Amino acid sequence: MNWNVYLSGEIHSDWREQIETGVQAAGLSLTLSSAVTDHETSDDCGDRILGPEDTPFWKDNKAAKINAIRISTLIRKADIVVVRFGDKYRQWNAAFDAGYAAALGKPLITLHDEALIHALKEVNAAALASARTPAQVVEILKYTLTGVC
Amino acid sequence: MNWNVYLSGEIHSDWREQIETGVQAAGLSLTLSSAVTDHETSDDCGDRILGPEDTPFWKDNKAAKINAIRISTLIRKADIVVVRFGDKYRQWNAAFDAGYAAALGKPLITLHDEALIHALKEVNAAALASARTPAQVVEILKYTLTGVC
Amino acid sequence: MNWNVYLSGEIHSDWREQIETGVQAAGLSLTLSSAVTDHETSDDCGDRILGPEDTPFWKDNKAAKINAIRISTLIRKADIVVVRFGDKYRQWNAAFDAGYAAALGKPLITLHDEALIHALKEVNAAALASARTPAQVVEILKYTLTGVC
Amino acid sequence: MNWNVYLSGEIHSDWREQIETGVQAAGLSLTLSSAVTDHETSDDCGDRILGPEDTPFWKDNKAAKINAIRISTLIRKADIVVVRFGDKYRQWNAAFDAGYAAALGKPLITLHDEALIHALKEVNAAALASARTPAQVVEILKYTLTGVC
Amino acid sequence: MNWNVYLSGEIHSDWREQIETGVQAAGLSLTLSSAVTDHETSDDCGDRILGPEDTPFWKDNKAAKINAIRISTLIRKADIVVVRFGDKYRQWNAAFDAGYAAALGKPLITLHDEALIHALKEVNAAALASARTPAQVVEILKYTLTGVC
Amino acid sequence: MNWNVYLSGEIHSDWREQIETGVQAAGLSLTLSSAVTDHETSDDCGDRILGPEDTPFWKDNKAAKINAIRISTLIRKADIVVVRFGDKYRQWNAAFDAGYAAALGKPLITLHDEALIHALKEVNAAALASARTPAQVVEILKYTLTGVC
Amino acid sequence: MNWNVYLSGEIHSDWREQIETGVQAAGLSLTLSSAVTDHETSDDCGDRILGPEDTPFWKDNKAAKINAIRISTLIRKADIVVVRFGDKYRQWNAAFDAGYAAALGKPLITLHDEALIHALKEVNAAALASARTPAQVVEILKYTLTGVC
Amino acid sequence: MNWNVYLSGEIHSDWREQIETGVQAAGLSLTLSSAVTDHETSDDCGDRILGPEDTPFWKDNKAAKINAIRISTLIRKADIVVVRFGDKYRQWNAAFDAGYAAALGKPLITLHDEALIHALKEVNAAALASARTPAQVVEILKYTLTGVC
Repeated sequence: MNWNVYLSGEIHSDWREQIETGVQAAGLSLTLSSAVTDHETSDDCGDRILGPEDTPFWKDNKAAKINAIRISTLIRKADIVVVRFGDKYRQWNAAFDAGYAAALGKPLITLHDEALIHALKEVNAAALASARTPAQVVEILKYTLTGVC
Repeated sequence: MNWNVYLSGEIHSDWREQIETGVQAAGLSLTLSSAVTDHETSDDCGDRILGPEDTPFWKDNKAAKINAIRISTLIRKADIVVVRFGDKYRQWNAAFDAGYAAALGKPLITLHDEALIHALKEVNAAALASARTPAQVVEILKYTLTGVC
Repeated sequence: MNWNVYLSGEIHSDWREQIETGVQAAGLSLTLSSAVTDHETSDDCGDRILGPEDTPFWKDNKAAKINAIRISTLIRKADIVVVRFGDKYRQWNAAFDAGYAAALGKPLITLHDEALIHALKEVNAAALASARTPAQVVEILKYTLTGVC
Repeated sequence: MNWNVYLSGEIHSDWREQIETGVQAAGLSLTLSSAVTDHETSDDCGDRILGPEDTPFWKDNKAAKINAIRISTLIRKADIVVVRFGDKYRQWNAAFDAGYAAALGKPLITLHDEALIHALKEVNAAALASARTPAQVVEILKYTLTGVC
Repeated sequence: MNWNVYLSGEIHSDWREQIETGVQAAGLSLTLSSAVTDHETSDDCGDRILGPEDTPFWKDNKAAKINAIRISTLIRKADIVVVRFGDKYRQWNAAFDAGYAAALGKPLITLHDEALIHALKEVNAAALASARTPAQVVEILKYTLTGVC
Repeated sequence: MNWNVYLSGEIHSDWREQIETGVQAAGLSLTLSSAVTDHETSDDCGDRILGPEDTPFWKDNKAAKINAIRISTLIRKADIVVVRFGDKYRQWNAAFDAGYAAALGKPLITLHDEALIHALKEVNAAALASARTPAQVVEILKYTLTGVC
Repeated sequence: MNWNVYLSGEIHSDWREQIETGVQAAGLSLTLSSAVTDHETSDDCGDRILGPEDTPFWKDNKAAKINAIRISTLIRKADIVVVRFGDKYRQWNAAFDAGYAAALGKPLITLHDEALIHALKEVNAAALASARTPAQVVEILKYTLTGVC
Repeated sequence: MNWNVYLSGEIHSDWREQIETGVQAAGLSLTLSSAVTDHETSDDCGDRILGPEDTPFWKDNKAAKINAIRISTLIRKADIVVVRFGDKYRQWNAAFDAGYAAALGKPLITLHDEALIHALKEVNAAALASARTPAQVVEILKYTLTGVC
């Protein structure tokens, strides 16, 4: 049993690394994946690969669609989707991923601070767990795979 | 041909009314629907119907899940989903609805100001049109149904 | 907007009638449906229509499959599924319907007493609302359709 | 050909062990899986991982949803679902799993005593086999994989 | 509640008329449909509409695919599929329709004589009822819609 | 029985009108639909509604995606899809629609001259009928609905 | 690339062995599977495993449903389904499998004599190839995998 | 992570080889596949394997359906579909594949010259990237798998 876990959302803290470290420490048979998390590369991939655009809209659109090749495929392959919301930026892509995963019937785990509970109530209504710390996410994954907690 | 159009997102301006007025003026055979847009009712429906909760998380969770009965059903019945993003609040429910609709293969139209283009690039990558004004949304709906623009 | 609501579960109290009366009083545009609720007819339909069986297993099997023609079709046509659990009998058909509806992505509302909370935790984990009284179910349906509560 | 078999239901007898032993003795290429079968851990996983709840409903709800991450994923991955009903407790989760599996089109095998035939008639109407002993389940699995019986 | 019932199979006896008469006598709100039952027209529709073919294979293939436009659409629209097997001819199209309907999750009712039980065991394994007379089929439809039997 | 028929492809001859006239003459209960067939409007709808683009690619992309709202919705609602290929232009949109319809399991009828048989062999491999004249398409629709030919 | 090929139908000639030998001789990376082809075992598996039945119908039904665990799973796992029709017996299970596979969108190859063309026209209308000899089936599989013919 | 990439379309230039070389040079874990690209073999496979046909239509039809066994299976197994359009021939099969892939929700990348932008606008409306050179396709695949560009 090797499950795929997609990690969506915030790219400005080390929550992915914490989960990865925790998963390895627990010896869990999980394949973690995520979008390209280098902000500049992610923003500029369209221009770099297919040439520059004159308008911000199409520059963004071209890049976002290339990123969507990766993201939509990984979410479709995922057994579990974890979505992290931080306290900065609008992070609409994280909420979009959560909605996308929910419609596909993927078990959803959210990760966010207490302060965001009200703003995330519709997302949490579709989630099977809402964690406050990366360590809790690791505990949920560990329990899900091994039955130990 | 009577199509269902679901209007998701911001509840603090009159964009829904503008679209409704425009649709009626154009004589379009469309059924518009949306979530419950009265903020307080939407927040408190869980407590009011099923009794109060002690913690903010479960109060929100109970209400959001009741709202999800309506929202998920209407999006599933919709032929087209319009999602409006304003400049205030986090509006993660709007992005969640957009992702949900996208995964179901529903044609998606976004409605937002120029200033939000970069923040919404992943959502727009899944949209078939990105409008700046409610009048443009009406024009798209009119063209889609009548072929006139 | 006329939605189909399937009422599953217990047949020994008048909860269906209470919901029907409440729905009519509220003037809701809902079509309520349910399995054949006459216990004896439901048990004997196989024998009556297709002839008697010698063993209890096949008598039950034949009847239950004929009932399944109705039940599975109605659940597939339903927009919302309400499942009632009483305090007597095993009611595995109610829990089966709940699981069936959940896998089809139907919004699920449970109706049961406080005392059954622990026994129904897995069913409620898949439900969007858990009501204690038929009146609460009516309130949820009314809010879902009209936005008033 | 390595098939996944999910074993759902009763956790108070050693039927899972009997099936596992039988499968190994027969040298069948099957991966058996099940929910977390330690009762206390299963009940308390929500509190232990995400912190305690004040009310029984939300304590149960939080735990059951974490368990659902595992259960729903394993049922979706399963080629065959076996559901065991014992003579004690309400076991609505077992019937829920059966309905969930049936709606996904998974071949369903039930395992229960003669005395439960009538109570399980709707579940058995959706099953491809109804066994009385774990040894019979092993025989069915063996026949399914090897053609020998 | 108006359900669609597709009547597949044998075209050499008046079983369709018997069912239609019975349905009307019972006042059931059902829409009955079937393939084109005029044998010669059904066989020759390809040649008549699109021009003659030189080889029997392609003459049949052309006609059968035109018939499939009607049949596959009606089965997809059906809520219930009834398949009749007579004692003459091979009737592989009837068994094909039964398999097609079963894979789509349509409730299946078979109609055939006692003598065909063994030959139809795989088809009946996927059926929710196996009737011997058209009157029994009408009784099942009546019970399914009205709960009376 | 009122079926939806989507007419895709060539917009430079009057084949749609011929089919419409034939359908009316035959008194068939069919709803015919198609993309916006005014070439200039179809090409310019993006610019007209959402404002001009500087580059041909994005002008076309914006318009084509608005047209896709109509086309994809109509194909999904269609019971039968007719695709016409003429002898001029590349008509990749017609072949795209055919592939789209085929993947959704829609019965497909092609309409084209003898000369295009080889070029359309992959499309015809997925079609249930290949007609040479609009009158033949009408005959197929008439036979499909009425059984007369 | 290792594809699964399900071989359905007639069990009274050595066509399966011929295909298996041909596939091995051609070195094709294919996993062939089929129903249990020992007639007596297949007929009696229900009685042997779960105990005898008094009536022929339920004896057959019990056995056929156990066989369906294997057959339905293998067809769902198959990339290609080959269905063989002989000149004896009714072979409704073969036609049922063909319809089941067709509804799931599985590429279908039929194998039968010239004499059965007319009787199999509806099945062949759903097939991508109709072969007369096992050697031709092997050639099709070889071409499909290697591009050589 | 080993993804399947299906390469559809033009067979008269070495674009497939260029992509394959580029993918190998970049060390990407991708399995590339495509239709049989030998023109004559692809055209004649039906006649060679199943015997000659008298009419061009059925010769083509028989061959195209055999090719469809391979093509439809590979597209269904693909994670990403690349479709190449050249400046010669009608290439309706390429556009058909694009539509087929789009309806299945497969991420689509087109590859064509600037001159074809207008003719391909409907195809590009469904694509997540439109490349001008095979090297750009390799860059997109590399970025999708490794996040580097």
